[in-house]
Amino acid sequence: MNNLENVSRSVSRPTLMRLPGYLNYLKLRQKDELVNISATKIASDLKLNHVQVRKDLASISSGGRPKTGYDIKELISDISTFLGYDNVNEAILVGAGKLGKTLLSYDGFSDYGLNILAAFDTDKNLIGNTINGKPIFSLEKLKDVCKRLNLRIGIITVPAAKAQKICNLLIDSGILAIWNFAPVHLHIPDNIILQNENMAASLAILANQLSERIQRKI
Amino acid sequence: MNNLENVSRSVSRPTLMRLPGYLNYLKLRQKDELVNISATKIASDLKLNHVQVRKDLASISSGGRPKTGYDIKELISDISTFLGYDNVNEAILVGAGKLGKTLLSYDGFSDYGLNILAAFDTDKNLIGNTINGKPIFSLEKLKDVCKRLNLRIGIITVPAAKAQKICNLLIDSGILAIWNFAPVHLHIPDNIILQNENMAASLAILANQLSERIQRKI
Repeated sequence: MNNLENVSRSVSRPTLMRLPGYLNYLKLRQKDELVNISATKIASDLKLNHVQVRKDLASISSGGRPKTGYDIKELISDISTFLGYDNVNEAILVGAGKLGKTLLSYDGFSDYGLNILAAFDTDKNLIGNTINGKPIFSLEKLKDVCKRLNLRIGIITVPAAKAQKICNLLIDSGILAIWNFAPVHLHIPDNIILQNENMAASLAILANQLSERIQRKI
Repeated sequence: MNNLENVSRSVSRPTLMRLPGYLNYLKLRQKDELVNISATKIASDLKLNHVQVRKDLASISSGGRPKTGYDIKELISDISTFLGYDNVNEAILVGAGKLGKTLLSYDGFSDYGLNILAAFDTDKNLIGNTINGKPIFSLEKLKDVCKRLNLRIGIITVPAAKAQKICNLLIDSGILAIWNFAPVHLHIPDNIILQNENMAASLAILANQLSERIQRKI
């Protein structure tokens, strides 16, 4: 049953960020052959505030019942639908270096409704190869492929100094949402959606704080 | 030449997050056989404010010279040393599922001074195997391995519902810094360093904003 008709699609960013965690948790519970679950139980297992969990779930599903709680299957369906995991989002990736290859090889994106169709690169040794069944094309073909397939999501895994140029090319090719893995700040127009994933920065913070911690102890 | 002796190890978090980007950029420039580079040129290429770049670099290197700018090789060395990329940080990973396997296979971490020594899992089909030369051990051996090798960094790639338990086990095993890829909020003591990497949440935001954008247009 899809309860989304009565529910607004607008939820807060923190709620949105928690939804994949609920989904991940509910799928594990489903394997335990559990049928119903309460917001209180979810909150307790995920170490979240139960008022917050109740609010989060009410914003994307009207399936909650007093005492019995939520039907797990229904709640999984509601969250999946809300997050757009049912409608597969097709994306292309630019930069088939170490990180690009790793993302192409990762089979977990399909759990989140993302399918990387192809990669683009300027390296002649890479062009024409496939990784995990995904072809690597010449960067020159990017615009044509994006326009022809009406693609909306582009993933950037090129070096920092090349990222802005690729970003501009993606936007010029009709891409509306950019997932940027290059360790650099991108300048984009207001109508473009940008999500940064900076693993190098995370590691820098981790390593720096760790070395400070260890030095203080000595 | 190492100029770090005159430089404080404390820089702001935004500066720290930009440092890997500079490093990445400088390594590319070095390939172009360039010897010196000015903060203005770096700022222009990376689309950053030149005052900010000047300040960032001055905080980790005293190698800047009027007119000639920085010696690229020296600046690369100063940033690498500051970020601890010279001293390899050894880490273990818990959860050898799809994401765990992908991170074990990724060869780019060594560029950031991170070396994942081994993985731990409860799945008997995985224990005893190696991925990219890294062994998968039984979770029961985690504490012993961490203590014996005096390890400080733990990477969590288990499902959301299991992450807190693993987090507690890591802390109990002497781990000081946790890189968490599970889509869940972890509760940790004040003395533990935590860095969250939530790709599912990033994708949820991207997909949700994209679907809103497309619906508005229709």
